[in-house]
Amino acid sequence: MKIIVDAMGSDQRPTPDTQGAVDAANEYGIEITLVGDETRVRAALSRLSQVPPSVSVLHAAQEIEMREHPALAVKEKKDSSIVVGIEQLKRGNADAFVSMGNTGATLAASVLYLQRLKGVHRPALGALFPTPQGPSLLIDVGANTDCKPEWLEQFAIMGDAYMRATLGLEQPRVALLANGEEDTKGNQTVQAAHALLRERARATKLNFIGNVEGKDIAAHLADVIVADGFAGNIALKTAEGVSKMLNDLIRREIKRNPLTMAGGALAMPAFNKVKKILDYTEYGGAPLLGVNGVVIIGHGRSNAVAVKNAIRVAKRSVESNILEIIRRGVAPSA
Amino acid sequence: MKIIVDAMGSDQRPTPDTQGAVDAANEYGIEITLVGDETRVRAALSRLSQVPPSVSVLHAAQEIEMREHPALAVKEKKDSSIVVGIEQLKRGNADAFVSMGNTGATLAASVLYLQRLKGVHRPALGALFPTPQGPSLLIDVGANTDCKPEWLEQFAIMGDAYMRATLGLEQPRVALLANGEEDTKGNQTVQAAHALLRERARATKLNFIGNVEGKDIAAHLADVIVADGFAGNIALKTAEGVSKMLNDLIRREIKRNPLTMAGGALAMPAFNKVKKILDYTEYGGAPLLGVNGVVIIGHGRSNAVAVKNAIRVAKRSVESNILEIIRRGVAPSA
Repeated sequence: MKIIVDAMGSDQRPTPDTQGAVDAANEYGIEITLVGDETRVRAALSRLSQVPPSVSVLHAAQEIEMREHPALAVKEKKDSSIVVGIEQLKRGNADAFVSMGNTGATLAASVLYLQRLKGVHRPALGALFPTPQGPSLLIDVGANTDCKPEWLEQFAIMGDAYMRATLGLEQPRVALLANGEEDTKGNQTVQAAHALLRERARATKLNFIGNVEGKDIAAHLADVIVADGFAGNIALKTAEGVSKMLNDLIRREIKRNPLTMAGGALAMPAFNKVKKILDYTEYGGAPLLGVNGVVIIGHGRSNAVAVKNAIRVAKRSVESNILEIIRRGVAPSA
Repeated sequence: MKIIVDAMGSDQRPTPDTQGAVDAANEYGIEITLVGDETRVRAALSRLSQVPPSVSVLHAAQEIEMREHPALAVKEKKDSSIVVGIEQLKRGNADAFVSMGNTGATLAASVLYLQRLKGVHRPALGALFPTPQGPSLLIDVGANTDCKPEWLEQFAIMGDAYMRATLGLEQPRVALLANGEEDTKGNQTVQAAHALLRERARATKLNFIGNVEGKDIAAHLADVIVADGFAGNIALKTAEGVSKMLNDLIRREIKRNPLTMAGGALAMPAFNKVKKILDYTEYGGAPLLGVNGVVIIGHGRSNAVAVKNAIRVAKRSVESNILEIIRRGVAPSA
């Protein structure tokens, strides 16, 4: 198996990307091609010990910054690490593409070059939402703002396939995100999608458990939470914002006097444990589902461990033949 | 000024409701009518000292439980404290209605009996989102799931009026909730509302600052955050869920060993401060805006302080003539 890794993805590029790729090549015994500025990537590699021969470098002269307009950047930077990497995947020179870079650009390049899997209405972006009981996949978190009910139905199918493939869940609990748990809740699109999913659950193995509310996400009441990219993005970002706000506020208040500071120092192992439990780096990046290729996108602030885990998720997706599972799932006869 | 207070609203009814009402009557020098089971309310009053003559009781034989279906309960329980209280407001026997009870039922009764203010497309439910820098009003959080752009525009106008009236903000920063801060983000409805609000900001004093993302809510980047009731509800509930999850998780991890427990005990003043900073009871309940009457709805788990503060907010809304401000704001000539 060969996985293309964007060497110019993370905020600290190319160091964590290169390190994570080398670690993955050693640990998983797979081939990796690092795409990016060859001089910088080779320099990063030269600082590492144990670079196996299965790690190669493919030069890409440009890089797409986080702040750039996704579609525009993809159009104008044909020699960027993202576009070059996705093109390699399209040509069949690799099995998966992994990037910690600009999410929108990776999405745009994937849709443009890889195109949709046969039968898929719209590709969707998943995001793993950390909870103490394990992660939930929120899908879509921004690829499609206005959705038809049939699209949401397919997001459910794709999310279900992904959680089976990468986390080994046997019967992922699939739910629709709504403004109440009752079946009658939701906007018109969600209500229509609810009916479609009930029907599909009767005909297939899909474990559709109905609606969940926003507060049920962190409570891990479902493994796959389906939303349009507008609502899904709002839920994900609101959660990030609240988490950061609470974290900052607790730190600030603890630092206010020596006694609480001493207490904070003593309690530090507990805080570190909480941090570890909710550590996104363990889950290894978010999938772009519904395009004709395995594409995993990680946080810009990823470290080498996060990069390695994203590569692991890509590997598992390839091994479990997720593209074929999705293709079958969305086929009209299914 | 006379304010009707639902004595059978809170989870611990009628104690916090009655206590809060008496405290408000004493502190603000206003008349209060407690609506509810007369025997139980009088018993609760008899346990309080300093019940001023400005506090009266109006009997209502029924009460609507939190779990009841709102519209059905309002239809079937004509003698419930919510319906009787709202009817008093409609008849002009009071200036405002305050309840800690079933939000949906209070909304349904208000729309049914008070009806909409002239010019208002749809009443909306606001919720105060606590942040360290002060509260933001999220509107709508569940009254309307599928909205037209003009409705969102009016939610902005109503939210702006409310934050000026109750928090004394001179130029509340009004924003649309979207999946990105750029002007081009949002679903079709939000994009259309964006154009309407830009236009209105040119013509009036409305301080429309554009789009905010989910993560900007907790960062207090806006004072009024406008969304349809579907997305607004998801944002609010997701935040509640994450907050509870983090709180539970930190407690659990601190309790795991004696050292972190000692640390947690020492740091307790800091945690209490965080709790106080984010205490919803300080803000005094959420407004139902756009109906022909001042209606404030508080949390079921309110204590007497929260009830008193909800009454204070109702009083300020009446004093600032919020109904007239909204009426003028939504008038076609405005």
